[in-house]
This record gives sequence, structure tokens and C-alpha cells, in this order.
Amino acid sequence: MNKFMDKDFLLDTDMAKKLFHEYAEDMPICDYHCHLSPKEIYENQPPENISQLWLSGDHYKWRAMRSCGVEEKYCTGDATPREKFEKFAYTLQYCIGNPLYHWAHIELQRYFGIDTPLNAKTADEIYDRANKAIAEGDFRPQSLIMRSNVKIVCTTDDPVDDLKYHKLLKDVDGFDCKVLPSFRPDKALNAHLDGFADYIKTLGNAAGVEIKSYKDVIKALLARADYFNEVGCKVSDQAFDYPPYSMADDSEIEAVFQKAMNGEKITMQECDKYRTPVLLALGKKYKQLGWAMEIHIGAMRNNNTLMFEKLGADTGFDSVGDCEVAAPLSRFLDALNKEDNLPKTILFNLNDKDNTVLGTMLGNFQSADAESKIQFGPAWWFLDTMDGMINQMKTLGNLGVLGKFVGMETDSRSFTSYGRHEYFRRIMCSLIGRWVEDGWYACDMDILKEIVCGICYNNAIKYFNF
Amino acid sequence: MNKFMDKDFLLDTDMAKKLFHEYAEDMPICDYHCHLSPKEIYENQPPENISQLWLSGDHYKWRAMRSCGVEEKYCTGDATPREKFEKFAYTLQYCIGNPLYHWAHIELQRYFGIDTPLNAKTADEIYDRANKAIAEGDFRPQSLIMRSNVKIVCTTDDPVDDLKYHKLLKDVDGFDCKVLPSFRPDKALNAHLDGFADYIKTLGNAAGVEIKSYKDVIKALLARADYFNEVGCKVSDQAFDYPPYSMADDSEIEAVFQKAMNGEKITMQECDKYRTPVLLALGKKYKQLGWAMEIHIGAMRNNNTLMFEKLGADTGFDSVGDCEVAAPLSRFLDALNKEDNLPKTILFNLNDKDNTVLGTMLGNFQSADAESKIQFGPAWWFLDTMDGMINQMKTLGNLGVLGKFVGMETDSRSFTSYGRHEYFRRIMCSLIGRWVEDGWYACDMDILKEIVCGICYNNAIKYFNF
Amino acid sequence: MNKFMDKDFLLDTDMAKKLFHEYAEDMPICDYHCHLSPKEIYENQPPENISQLWLSGDHYKWRAMRSCGVEEKYCTGDATPREKFEKFAYTLQYCIGNPLYHWAHIELQRYFGIDTPLNAKTADEIYDRANKAIAEGDFRPQSLIMRSNVKIVCTTDDPVDDLKYHKLLKDVDGFDCKVLPSFRPDKALNAHLDGFADYIKTLGNAAGVEIKSYKDVIKALLARADYFNEVGCKVSDQAFDYPPYSMADDSEIEAVFQKAMNGEKITMQECDKYRTPVLLALGKKYKQLGWAMEIHIGAMRNNNTLMFEKLGADTGFDSVGDCEVAAPLSRFLDALNKEDNLPKTILFNLNDKDNTVLGTMLGNFQSADAESKIQFGPAWWFLDTMDGMINQMKTLGNLGVLGKFVGMETDSRSFTSYGRHEYFRRIMCSLIGRWVEDGWYACDMDILKEIVCGICYNNAIKYFNF
Repeated sequence: MNKFMDKDFLLDTDMAKKLFHEYAEDMPICDYHCHLSPKEIYENQPPENISQLWLSGDHYKWRAMRSCGVEEKYCTGDATPREKFEKFAYTLQYCIGNPLYHWAHIELQRYFGIDTPLNAKTADEIYDRANKAIAEGDFRPQSLIMRSNVKIVCTTDDPVDDLKYHKLLKDVDGFDCKVLPSFRPDKALNAHLDGFADYIKTLGNAAGVEIKSYKDVIKALLARADYFNEVGCKVSDQAFDYPPYSMADDSEIEAVFQKAMNGEKITMQECDKYRTPVLLALGKKYKQLGWAMEIHIGAMRNNNTLMFEKLGADTGFDSVGDCEVAAPLSRFLDALNKEDNLPKTILFNLNDKDNTVLGTMLGNFQSADAESKIQFGPAWWFLDTMDGMINQMKTLGNLGVLGKFVGMETDSRSFTSYGRHEYFRRIMCSLIGRWVEDGWYACDMDILKEIVCGICYNNAIKYFNF
Repeated sequence: MNKFMDKDFLLDTDMAKKLFHEYAEDMPICDYHCHLSPKEIYENQPPENISQLWLSGDHYKWRAMRSCGVEEKYCTGDATPREKFEKFAYTLQYCIGNPLYHWAHIELQRYFGIDTPLNAKTADEIYDRANKAIAEGDFRPQSLIMRSNVKIVCTTDDPVDDLKYHKLLKDVDGFDCKVLPSFRPDKALNAHLDGFADYIKTLGNAAGVEIKSYKDVIKALLARADYFNEVGCKVSDQAFDYPPYSMADDSEIEAVFQKAMNGEKITMQECDKYRTPVLLALGKKYKQLGWAMEIHIGAMRNNNTLMFEKLGADTGFDSVGDCEVAAPLSRFLDALNKEDNLPKTILFNLNDKDNTVLGTMLGNFQSADAESKIQFGPAWWFLDTMDGMINQMKTLGNLGVLGKFVGMETDSRSFTSYGRHEYFRRIMCSLIGRWVEDGWYACDMDILKEIVCGICYNNAIKYFNF
Repeated sequence: MNKFMDKDFLLDTDMAKKLFHEYAEDMPICDYHCHLSPKEIYENQPPENISQLWLSGDHYKWRAMRSCGVEEKYCTGDATPREKFEKFAYTLQYCIGNPLYHWAHIELQRYFGIDTPLNAKTADEIYDRANKAIAEGDFRPQSLIMRSNVKIVCTTDDPVDDLKYHKLLKDVDGFDCKVLPSFRPDKALNAHLDGFADYIKTLGNAAGVEIKSYKDVIKALLARADYFNEVGCKVSDQAFDYPPYSMADDSEIEAVFQKAMNGEKITMQECDKYRTPVLLALGKKYKQLGWAMEIHIGAMRNNNTLMFEKLGADTGFDSVGDCEVAAPLSRFLDALNKEDNLPKTILFNLNDKDNTVLGTMLGNFQSADAESKIQFGPAWWFLDTMDGMINQMKTLGNLGVLGKFVGMETDSRSFTSYGRHEYFRRIMCSLIGRWVEDGWYACDMDILKEIVCGICYNNAIKYFNF
């Protein structure tokens, strides 16, 4: 029996061990998509205890706890930090096969020096040891980022954001990590949701554009993209239930926009008519700026009305949708491509039933603009599991060119989540190591080193031009 | 090479062997969903021969035989029992990779003491040996159930059923197994099918309710649910091609209902408008009664018109549909949840493309009402295979809490199908054993015992409150 | 570590080695679906160099190269053969996990006697050695086919084709392989595409039928089917984005047909009304002729408008669609079956999300007409990968009868692609070998030999009646 999550965790062949320990392990991290707060990074306050670090904002952990019948007061409520930690530890012991289990133990080992498995019996002891480590060590955000060898962090930012903290972070002494904004225009695209009209006013103010028509929305967004670009942005990100693509004429688009601005409810079909020209204009702009366009497809959000009313969004009540994606996504990318406006693009799916669709969509629009200009994004959110990662890499291997993959990002809100890069790298080295060990891929260490280090870090740096 | 299907069949690590032989193997069985006949259990007649036991009602076996080009007379026709058995044995040798192959051999070994592989060459010898075992042993239904260590059987019953045999079975001496009804209101929901109006009259009679409007249907169903509850029912079950959810106003619903009662053909869209309020009322009732609501999604039935006309339903001409399920299922569960009417719920999918949708849907509605109040049902029917079970357990492990899983049911019509629980347990122990052996999960035998025995039996007993 | 792609490549158990080397390896090949040119086979010209052989028409390779950022001139443009080969070799080293990597090395080993792994460093040396082998050896199409032990080749032919080369090939001395036409009526079905009216005129001329109504189209197609049958055709093939099934009355069908003949654009919904009766008439004819009907579902073609305008179809810009397939496919097959007109049918899916739908669809329509009359086609095109093949075989094993599978075809345009049969056979022997080695299937060598040789060759010969 292998030792529990020791230095060779997941490395099941000699080649996997070699690839990980000699190449992957010490590569820096380029976290090109996450939800870290630039304000928190700048303010650099240590957590009070491990419950604050782990349980104050992590909807993955809350979901698991609720799935064990744990009452809400231990998740988002007013139970004590120790009680919350105990309930989480109780939950974790039933999470066999869940990435939370591995993430938690990697974090305990790497950041806290604790090798003991966490469960109901060990909860109190580990709670005390972890808090002692926090009290005696340096758990400030900037230190955690630097200890994790992270060189690039791309946060997720609204176009109206002034990016104050990104600017301030450029001048922090001794903090050797670029914290760059990403441009996420979702609110400007969600004309079907409450608050759209108010948001558009805020956007107009931020851009110095008086917004009277949908074309002014585009104008304002492009102005903000220029501003983001000045602050170092190189990535945009948009998230959809399904890829919107619906061509309409100007007057029809304008009518939808005005209806939404008047606070009337519009249908998704109407919304798509508005989104399509805005997205096409944005895509063109991203191409001009040399940015990459990330497209996240397939989340179905806020399914639980009761809890949404109590706790708001991003609290653990989202799940995976199953709309058809192939045709609209193809037409959207083609509409950009045929005008030579298609930027570098990364396609992320949340439903693994779409792996084959996305894995083959890439090939439709590759070009000499970049190596694997159209990328298949790493397994994300609910798919950010061992099986999800293996399936994503096998799909890309089968249908595209795995050796040019830009690799992992954390998509996380937590400063200790960088263990997920280690987890990804172990899985990647295990997969590739097995292929070499079995004689399926030639054992040429120069090439293997290039591929492994490429997927860990180098491909992303080159692709995004960081 | 391993011996063919010996005591360590499927147990590919030392830990798997330990988990199975020390914990799982001797746990009782809680078969919380099956299609056994309470009348047959009560009447307790032994089969005449192995062909009657195996081939008189098993559409899995008929499908396999037809797939080998076997003529219908050997499946459902008038060939002799020996001829039918020979054709099945011939078929089985080509069923490499099929669960039928394993189920048949587990049954031969456990119930008949026959270790010889079944194929065309061995058919006659095994036919004779099996019939000798039947003649000399005790193959009556109650004996088979007790030999299989089954403590709970939940049959599948129509709301109009008088549950006579369930009542009689409570008083059978020496039969140490609870046989409980399940409430399956499909016929009351299928307003688009022939025979609906007649069925509704029968329902009204059974409930003592004069049914003049769709609200009277609800009234009658709730009355029957109370009656089922008195007889010990704790589970309801509904099956859909896709989850129906379509809100309409009262007059519209009533119009659909009256149209159907007049024997006019209604569309599926119309039917959904009728089904939705009926299902919401039923869900609320189940919650009040403390029942679990099973939802089986994705069967496409009676595809072969010719054979349906010859043989009727459930004769091996069903397959798997591919409708979108995420949005309507989410809205249906949310509609119950926001009024605090959501009962314990088990979601079953027949198309594995929906695994991720269901595996994440659970988390939207978990609460402190129960441990894993919303369950991901075990791999079912066409997915009740080694790959199907592993995928279901990995999906649940990745996306939910596997340690709280209520585990296997047979969904079967056969008294020797309890070997499927053994098959499931071997696969479950192999999966968990491998995770421990590889150092992916801590080797704490107390916790592992709790998880394994929980999934085998204890979780179900607690969840359903048997 | 295993040696790189040696004689036991992919054969990971002793049983796998035995099954492959003793049974599978020397079985002949029946390539019942491919895109080889009968003209090229007849004219029998050797390639000028390996770039012409490998890179002049292979969109798989072009896609991979474009995915590495290689400029178009090295794919379809005017770079020198050596430059193209170098770019391909560079690309291949990043194609870890891609079947191209294995196909290329199998072809280098078997046809060129080159064991060196191909990459940027070895490109020039291998280019020279391969061209020397071509210059000194016999790389003419007929020789490559015979060296590959191919006994049957079914090409893909338009109903208007005169089949001249198929006829000529019957009389070529010393060429011991039947080259038979397949009937592919796609152009007669695609009433929504440009060029339909012109095509219908050509079809009328070929059939000697004056086509004035859609019923004349049917008449012409049936006449051409008779002609194909005379030349030895035993297979038809149709490809759809999704299975069309839409019943309409005669006048409506005729109106759609006339609209299309007038060069007006018709919708897909309209087109389906036309296709349905044509397909039903064709299915009936195939049944009468004893042909097998292949149905290829799920390609989404010509996604990149710019490149389609530059290079035309089949140049590497196709991908996988995700339409719903279960209901229309079931209704189409049932419409044939209920009139006793359903021919032997092979269902191919391009999206693996449909594996379970197709794997269970088979069982709805099996009969004593043939052993596994309805077949689940081998993993095809984008799914023609190790994972795709394993998934297809496991799906068929779980849901149908793997032992009656008709096995692999190449679907290829290249004379060295017969290595894909070897690749398939290694994977099949590895899968079955593992099941026997693990004690999951009885070790009866007679039965195993029958199954393995059946899937390699014998089942197809019997099924198609070649």
C-alpha cells in the first residue's frame, strides 16, 4: 500500500516521478484566471484562523457540508470557528473520491506542515495546530502567493472597475508577482437580468460615454478595454449558460436594448440578439489588443430561490446545464473569423458531455496567429477533479495538440488554493509518464521536458504574452 | 491469470478484498426499488425449471438473444424450456463485457452451486444440474429472499392497488423480510396515453373520490398515498422521458384534463401543464409523510411498434432518450423547495451523458433535513453495468458525498437477482480499496468500515427510516 | 519501461499477446467503409515521396499542423515536400496522446521499416530514408493493399457514378482484393444545399428517368441501386447532422421538392419532409437487395467560411455536433420496421455523448434476419482513437453483444492507413485479454478465438455476405 498522499502522491510510474520531481514541481505558476481580490492582496492581512481561511467564502466546502446534512449555521452562519471546522472535518471523512479531500490535505501539508488525515476524530487537534501555524508563521496573502511560486495572477474584474489595487500592487516592494486585471463584461451582456439599466449607467459614467443606444454600450466597453489594457490586462472572460448567437438587424437590436433599459423583462431570445453584436465588437477589440478571449460555457446558476434570497449568488447553489452548444458556438467564432477578427480564444465547458464538441471545435479555427490559437480550457469548477482533468487532457490529446496546452488556472477565491496547480501537475505527469512507460510515446527527455514545462508554465507565458 | 469469477472476483487489491470479505459481504440487503410481485412472494411457488426462473420474464436476456439472431420462439415463444436455455447459453458466450454474463454466473454459483462457465457446449449439462438443484433444494421466493439476506423489499405499486399481499405478508411466520409498497402514480400522470380516462375512473373508485376536475385527481392520489402510508410505504417513484415542468393557470390545466378525459389526444406540452401541479401536490404530500421521492429520467419506451403490438410493454424494446433535463428538473425541485415542500429525493438518470447534470443538481437542494437529502440514484437498468456503476460512484464522489450514498437496489423482477447487490458491492469495494491502496484516501479502518457498511445497507435504512 | 511501440505495443497482458499474435494479427482485412479512389487503385501509380503519400490529402494531419501554429503553405500550400514533412514532424512531437502519433509510427514501421521516433530532430533523416524506401520498394496502391492483406474494399460512391473503375478492377490479374462500390445518396438528400437542382438533373440522366417530382427522384435512386447491385455493391451509406424524421403528406413533400428545384432556399425542417420518404424508400430497397444501411450521425461540416471558400470541403474544418438523436432515429427505424422494410443497419455516432443512445437503440430492432442485424458502428473519424475505440467496444459489450460485432473499417483516403486495423486489433485484444486475465470472462480458447477472429474479419464477411 502506498503511503497516504506522500511525496509521490498520484505518481504511479517511475517516469511520472521523474517528470514531476525533475521538471514540473519547481516550475513557477501562471494563474491566468482566478477570483482573488486585488484589494485583499494589496491590504495583505493574515487570516485569523483556519476557519476564516477555509470556510468564510468557499462554496465548494459549504456544498459538501450541506450534503452531509450539516446545518446552515455551520456553513455561512454564526457558529464559532472551531465548530465550523469540526463540521467540515466530519464532512471531509465522507468525501471519498472528492477533490476537496485532496485539496484540503495538500494545503494542510504544504502550508501548515500537517500530515495527519483530517476527520472528525482529528479535527480539534488539527484546528489547534493549524491556528498555531497561522499565529507563528506568515499567512499574509502576498507571502502565500510568493511561497507558491506564482508569477502571474489574473483577477476577474468588471469593466467599470477603476483597477486601483492593480495599480497599487505594481509598486509593492518585494512582491514578485504580476497581478493583472481581466475584463469580464458579463453585466453589460445580461440584459435579461434585474439591474441591467442601472449597470449600464454606471458603465457610461466609468467610460465617460453617454449611453443612449446599444452602440454606445459597445463604445463604452471598448473604451474600458483600452483602459484595462493600459493597466496590463491581457485576458477577457465571458460566461454563458450556452453560446449566444442570433443575428438581427439594427433596429431590432436597438428595440431590445431600449426595452431592457426601460426595466422591462426581455426573453433570452431577445437578449441573444443584443448580446451577439456586442460580443462580436468585443471579440474584434480583443484581437486588436492581442488579448485572449475566455469563454466559459454551461453553468446554471442560482437554482435555489430560497437560498439565493438569503445568501445571494456564489454561495453553492449552482449546477451544470445541458444546452446544445455546437452550432451557435461555431457560428459565433466563424462570424469573427471571417472578418479576421477572431482573437486567441480559450473554450471552457462545464458539462463534460461537451468535451468532444469543444475538443473538435478548436480545430476549425486554428491558424498561424498562435500555437494552438484556439485552446481547450482546463477542467473547470465542477470538472476540476482528477477524472475531469484526465478527461480534458485525453480529449485534447485525442482531438488536438496536448503539447501546446496552456495548462491550469485555479479559478479560485482562496490564497491557499495554489495546491491545485500541484494536483494538476501530478495528474498530468502521471498521465504522460504512463504513456511513456507503456511505450506509447517515445522516451525523449528533451521533448518530454519541453512538453511538461510547457503545460506547467511556459506555454501560457508565450500564449498570453505575459 | 485470475481464476474465473472466484471468491475474489473483481477484488483487485488487498484492501478491496478486506473491505468486501470483512465488511460488505455479510451486510443485509435493503432493496428499496424493485419490481418483484408481492403476490408471487406470498404464494411462494418454486419455479419448474431454470428456464422458467431465468427466461420467462427477463427482457434483458431476450434482448441479448435477439441480438444474436435467435428467433422469437426461443425468447417469448413456444420452444421447450431446454431449447430456450440452449439458445440463451449460446448467446451468453458472445456476451463478453456484458453484465448478463456476470449476473448469470453469480446466480449459478450462489443459488445452484455450479461453477462451470455457461456456453453452448456446457448448456445441456448445466440445464440438468440446475434443474436437479431446483428439484432437490428450496427455490421458493421467500427462501430465495431470505437466503439472500434481504431485510427490506420495496415493490412498485399503482395507487389503485389494494396492497392485499403486502398486508398478508406481514403475518407470514418465519419470513423475516419487510415487503413494503412503493407509490408509483405514472398512470395518473400520463394523460397523453390511451386509457387515461378509464384509469382515472378506477382511481376515483379506489379513493372514494368522484373525479370531476384535475384537483380531484390530486385529492384521490393524496388519499391513496395516506392508504399506502398506513401499509408501510416510504417511497414513491415516478418515471419520465424528461422532467416535466410547465406552469399554467388553473383554467388551462383544467382544459387539458377535460380534453384527455374526453379521450382526445393531447400533446406532451399540454400533458406537462397537467402533470406539473399534480407532481407539485404529490411532492408536498411525500414531504409531509416523510417519504422519499424517486425520479427516474430518460427511458424511451416501446420503440418497436410491431413487437409492442405482439408482446406489449416491458418486453425488451425500450432504449435511452437524450432530452435536455437540467433546466426543467431544477425548476421543478425549486418550485417544491421554495415552499418548503421538497421531500427527500433520489434522482436516477438512464443516459450517462446526464451524470454531471444530476451529480451537481443534488447540491442545489441539500439541507439539514437528511444526510444527502438529495441522492444520486445508483446506476440503473441499461447503466447497471460495471462501467455504469463505477461512473455513477465516481461522479457522486467527485460532485457530492459518496460516503452518504444510499447504495444499490435491484430494479428487478427476478428472485435470484440479488446477486446484483453482491456485484455492486464487489465493484464498490474495488473502487474504494484502490483509492486507499494508492494512498489517495487515508487508511482508517473505522471510517472505511462505516462508509462501506453505510453504502451497503446502513445509509439506506437511516435515509428511508425503515 | 516498455520499448517504444514494439511488437507487443498495447498488449499489456499475456492473454492480450496470445489473442493478438496467435489469432488477430494474421487475419485478413475487410474494409467495408473507406474513401479510397477506385481510379487510383486501378491506375496504380506509386507516390513520389512520403509527403505526397502522407500530406497531400490528409486533413487529420493538416489540422494538427495548424494547431501548432504552422502556416497554411506547409499544409495545403506550395512549400516543398521536404519542408512540409519537417513541419509535420515538428507537429507530431507535440501530438502526445493523439492517434496520428501512433498511426504515423505504425506506418513508418510496417511500410517503410523505420523504427526511429519521428520528431523535429529526426525529420530529415526519416524523410530521406522513407523516400529511399519508396524509390526502391513497391508502394503502388495495389501492392500496399495486398501487403496489408486486404480482401474487401468498399469505396464510397455517388449514385450517378458509372463505376467504371470497379468494373475494370475485377479483371486485374494478380490483384487479389474485391473493390466494391458503396451507394451514398447524400447529394440527392441534401435539398437545402446549393447545387441540388443540378445534381437531380445529373441523377435523372444517369438513371434514364425524367425527374419531375420527388417520386421520380426515388425512382431514379432505386434504378441506380439496382445498377450498383449488379456491380457488386452490398452497402449503402448516408450521413446526417442529425437523423431526419418528419412525416408529411404528398403535396407538402412535393411543394418542398419543387421549391428546392427552383433554386429557392429551403429550411432544414422542410428538407426533412423531403428526406423522410426518400430514405424510407431507400431503406426498403436496401432490404430487398440484402444490403446493409450505414448511417453516420453527428458531423458538423465546413465551420470555417474563410477556409471553405479557399480550400473547399474535407480540408480539416469539420467538427462534432450535439443535436438530439434518440427520438427521430427511433421513429425512422420503426417506420421501416413496421412494414418489414428495415435492412441490416449500422449506426455510427460522431459524438460520444450518443454512445448510450445508440448502444441501446440497437436492441429495439434486432431480429432473426441476421446476427446483430442492427450494429453499433466502430469508433469513427474524431472518435477513431484509443479511448474512442475502447468506449465503443465497452458500450457495445455492456449494452449489446460484442461477440457479434462486425469490427473496424478505415474510413480513410490513404493506402497506408491499413495500420489502423492493426491498431484496432491490438486495442481489442488488450481489452478482451484483460477481461480474461482478470477472471471476468472464462478462459475458453475456442470461444475466444471465434470472438477475436469474428471481430477482426469473419463477422463482417458473414454479415455483409461478401
